[in-house]
Amino acid sequence: MVLTVAQLAQRIGAELVGDGAVEINTVAPMGTAGKSEVTFVADNKHMAALESSRAGAVIVAERVEGLSRPQLIVKNVDTALIEALNIFAPKLKPPPEGIDPTAKVGQDAKIARGVSVGPGAVIGDGVEIGEYCVIASGCQIHENSKLGKNCRLDSNVVVYHNCTIGNNVIIQANSTIGSTGFGYSFINGAHRLIPHNGGVVIEDFVEIGANCCIDRAKFGNTIIGAGTKIDNLVQIAHNVVIGKCCLIVGQVGIAGSCRLGDRVVLGGQVGLADNIEIGDGVMVGGQSGVGRDVPAGQRLLGSPATEITEAAKIYGLTRRLPKLAELVRQLRKRIEKLEVAKDDKK
Amino acid sequence: MVLTVAQLAQRIGAELVGDGAVEINTVAPMGTAGKSEVTFVADNKHMAALESSRAGAVIVAERVEGLSRPQLIVKNVDTALIEALNIFAPKLKPPPEGIDPTAKVGQDAKIARGVSVGPGAVIGDGVEIGEYCVIASGCQIHENSKLGKNCRLDSNVVVYHNCTIGNNVIIQANSTIGSTGFGYSFINGAHRLIPHNGGVVIEDFVEIGANCCIDRAKFGNTIIGAGTKIDNLVQIAHNVVIGKCCLIVGQVGIAGSCRLGDRVVLGGQVGLADNIEIGDGVMVGGQSGVGRDVPAGQRLLGSPATEITEAAKIYGLTRRLPKLAELVRQLRKRIEKLEVAKDDKK
Amino acid sequence: MVLTVAQLAQRIGAELVGDGAVEINTVAPMGTAGKSEVTFVADNKHMAALESSRAGAVIVAERVEGLSRPQLIVKNVDTALIEALNIFAPKLKPPPEGIDPTAKVGQDAKIARGVSVGPGAVIGDGVEIGEYCVIASGCQIHENSKLGKNCRLDSNVVVYHNCTIGNNVIIQANSTIGSTGFGYSFINGAHRLIPHNGGVVIEDFVEIGANCCIDRAKFGNTIIGAGTKIDNLVQIAHNVVIGKCCLIVGQVGIAGSCRLGDRVVLGGQVGLADNIEIGDGVMVGGQSGVGRDVPAGQRLLGSPATEITEAAKIYGLTRRLPKLAELVRQLRKRIEKLEVAKDDKK
Repeated sequence: MVLTVAQLAQRIGAELVGDGAVEINTVAPMGTAGKSEVTFVADNKHMAALESSRAGAVIVAERVEGLSRPQLIVKNVDTALIEALNIFAPKLKPPPEGIDPTAKVGQDAKIARGVSVGPGAVIGDGVEIGEYCVIASGCQIHENSKLGKNCRLDSNVVVYHNCTIGNNVIIQANSTIGSTGFGYSFINGAHRLIPHNGGVVIEDFVEIGANCCIDRAKFGNTIIGAGTKIDNLVQIAHNVVIGKCCLIVGQVGIAGSCRLGDRVVLGGQVGLADNIEIGDGVMVGGQSGVGRDVPAGQRLLGSPATEITEAAKIYGLTRRLPKLAELVRQLRKRIEKLEVAKDDKK
Repeated sequence: MVLTVAQLAQRIGAELVGDGAVEINTVAPMGTAGKSEVTFVADNKHMAALESSRAGAVIVAERVEGLSRPQLIVKNVDTALIEALNIFAPKLKPPPEGIDPTAKVGQDAKIARGVSVGPGAVIGDGVEIGEYCVIASGCQIHENSKLGKNCRLDSNVVVYHNCTIGNNVIIQANSTIGSTGFGYSFINGAHRLIPHNGGVVIEDFVEIGANCCIDRAKFGNTIIGAGTKIDNLVQIAHNVVIGKCCLIVGQVGIAGSCRLGDRVVLGGQVGLADNIEIGDGVMVGGQSGVGRDVPAGQRLLGSPATEITEAAKIYGLTRRLPKLAELVRQLRKRIEKLEVAKDDKK
Repeated sequence: MVLTVAQLAQRIGAELVGDGAVEINTVAPMGTAGKSEVTFVADNKHMAALESSRAGAVIVAERVEGLSRPQLIVKNVDTALIEALNIFAPKLKPPPEGIDPTAKVGQDAKIARGVSVGPGAVIGDGVEIGEYCVIASGCQIHENSKLGKNCRLDSNVVVYHNCTIGNNVIIQANSTIGSTGFGYSFINGAHRLIPHNGGVVIEDFVEIGANCCIDRAKFGNTIIGAGTKIDNLVQIAHNVVIGKCCLIVGQVGIAGSCRLGDRVVLGGQVGLADNIEIGDGVMVGGQSGVGRDVPAGQRLLGSPATEITEAAKIYGLTRRLPKLAELVRQLRKRIEKLEVAKDDKK
């Protein structure tokens, strides 16, 4: 795919300033972009580097005076960048409509029109798959689970029985939805598994990374709210309820029955203890451990997590502990001197 | 499934107090249970909430005086709850006995009676599978591995060669058993893999979550002791030996050659350094890191982990570091004043 | 496989001291080796235990005087150990050459000679697989990805489209290569996925454990440098560039756009924040969290990570915080006494 800057401007609805004849074949970040590549300025702090970039053109939010290359001026650089990336995306064959002959579809399964079921996929009895879903090779969807429209399950995803997945959901390769949670009662000297009669509900526009685990509920449902995005290798335990538009970064672990509000952000490798409530908009920094309820809007860091400015202060003081300990030692000596002086006076 | 409370009482061996005609169709926790649902009181601290629950009936260990709904009095609420959950479990088709025509079974493999091998599963040469095992779709069991009776391997589980799995073992979807461990020698400027001639032994009644990894041994076997339960996304390295009835919570990492006693509990995201010994009954709190041997019975917390009451004290003092540092600053000023006063006297 | 010590000495190029007729059937560590097993002394600190070992023979770097069993003296014990382990490795059937009839190979895919493609594997359109690769059962390799020679992909590995894998690469079971990274723009109240037009490049002799995730790049490539070894359950985000001969231990998480030099070692469960640069030879201890650039050669520990000797000092002082706080309390009392004494004088 090659477009002139003028053509690209038209495609992404940009105002063109400069030479529209320059040919562009891809998008690249400022540091590596060459003369056939369009770059972008996501925020003003990167504006200074723009002149030294060798990019063939640049997407900006405001006209840059004196810039020696074509500018594509847009209202929202993020939106324009997504459009440009889609334009220059590598061309892949669309997944073939229909059910691959090596796939297996159970009794009473309902596969809507436009669905693609890849090689070796297994669709259990009573499963429903909505229009235009793409179920990639090696997926296993078990009895009575339901998918809405336009979902994409990548290769080797496993969905256990009785799970409910909304519309426009993406689940990446090797993830597991609806496994039995880690709930045991210690009876007569052995851990006995508590049956998990509940399911998993994944709402619209949820996106789940690769190799994630979302356990089914003991009662009711484990719920992932609409628009929430989950990175790779994330563990979500039984009966967790996550609100809308949260961001859950890689390797986070959320223990049983936690309740998260909307727009919560959990950094990489964060752990939440079981049965806590995290309010709307809470942000937790990477590797933090949260063991208590957190009111809406707080920003936390550390294990155990504290409010972020307090955490920063504590970290700073912890690193200065050698100096503090040395200071205390010196103060003790000075006190000893004072005490000796006092005693001498007696 | 709908039962009257009287029928349910009979099924779970409970003494009935109150109206036996109320109809029940599921189990639910106290906060959400409705009038067609039975709830339970697991411990006395939840007793107070019982009167305000709208549950149709309640499973309790002792008769509650003055309660305005049917009571099912049992010796052990945990046991009765498991029974009730099994009674009201969603009805699923039993896995079909026999080998799915799309599965592949190797030479000399021995598949006992009552076994179910799902679509696309691959059973390698010389594999033995005991009676009534359920090998779900997409499982890959490699050369010479042996499974006992009544095991359940969920979809897409991979078992490498020469692994030995006992009776009544459950392994959930996308887990990997018997991968080569992370053992390298640095020779002539490159990391060379040390061959892993050993295997994995998983004893009876072990249950392993989804997306776990259990590496095979360099020599001898990596061993998971009978009755031990492992949550999702857990990493168990080569030559680890885990005792009986341990609980290993999600995302724990156990490095090479660690030896765990019986009834050890590791909280979520705990890490154990390689080659350490953890005694019987040790409990380690979530996100802790253990780098040394731990005697039986200890409770640890923190990274690096210390005894839990000491850890709590240290955490408390760490959070009060700003106050301690301020106090030391004030003390220094007071000492300076005292020193000035002393010098003035001279 | 049974060899006399004399035969084994010849096979591994060792000088034999002692009785060459002893028969050996495997390799075992010193503590468990029996009289038909050969053991080894990897470093001098284990030399003392040698006499009490019941091993039938021992591989050593230097002749041990007065030892009552055969010695195999070699230049490099590590190399000899690997050779001996290979000699005594359990015999497995070689993977059958050719494409299993249940595998599916796409249009224009190029499968070189000597390749083995296992049952149920799916090779997408335009995929290229070099000589003598072993693609195990259940692997899914998508459109246009390329593998060099002698690679081994274990069961259920997923490689997304447009990934490039070099020669002699091993990827263990259930790992995911080329998933879309966690990159979103918040636009009009929703997180919108940023298209990931880039790919993944895995260079020669890279080895990747089980259940790992390596995300594809937004632009350009996520790159794993030649000879780097990666343990299980590791997360490598979009646009990360890892140098040569690094060791990445289990459950490490590397956030987006990090750049690692050569010979970097990251301990288990380490987390790297996004977009940082880690110099050549840096070593980071287990569970550490690194949030800033690290110059070459540093050794770090802690979360947030600091230089290792400083970290050890801080850890020590943190554990002595109860004593420090008590000392400060006592000093305050002594100051109060001095102040009272001074006031009394007035």
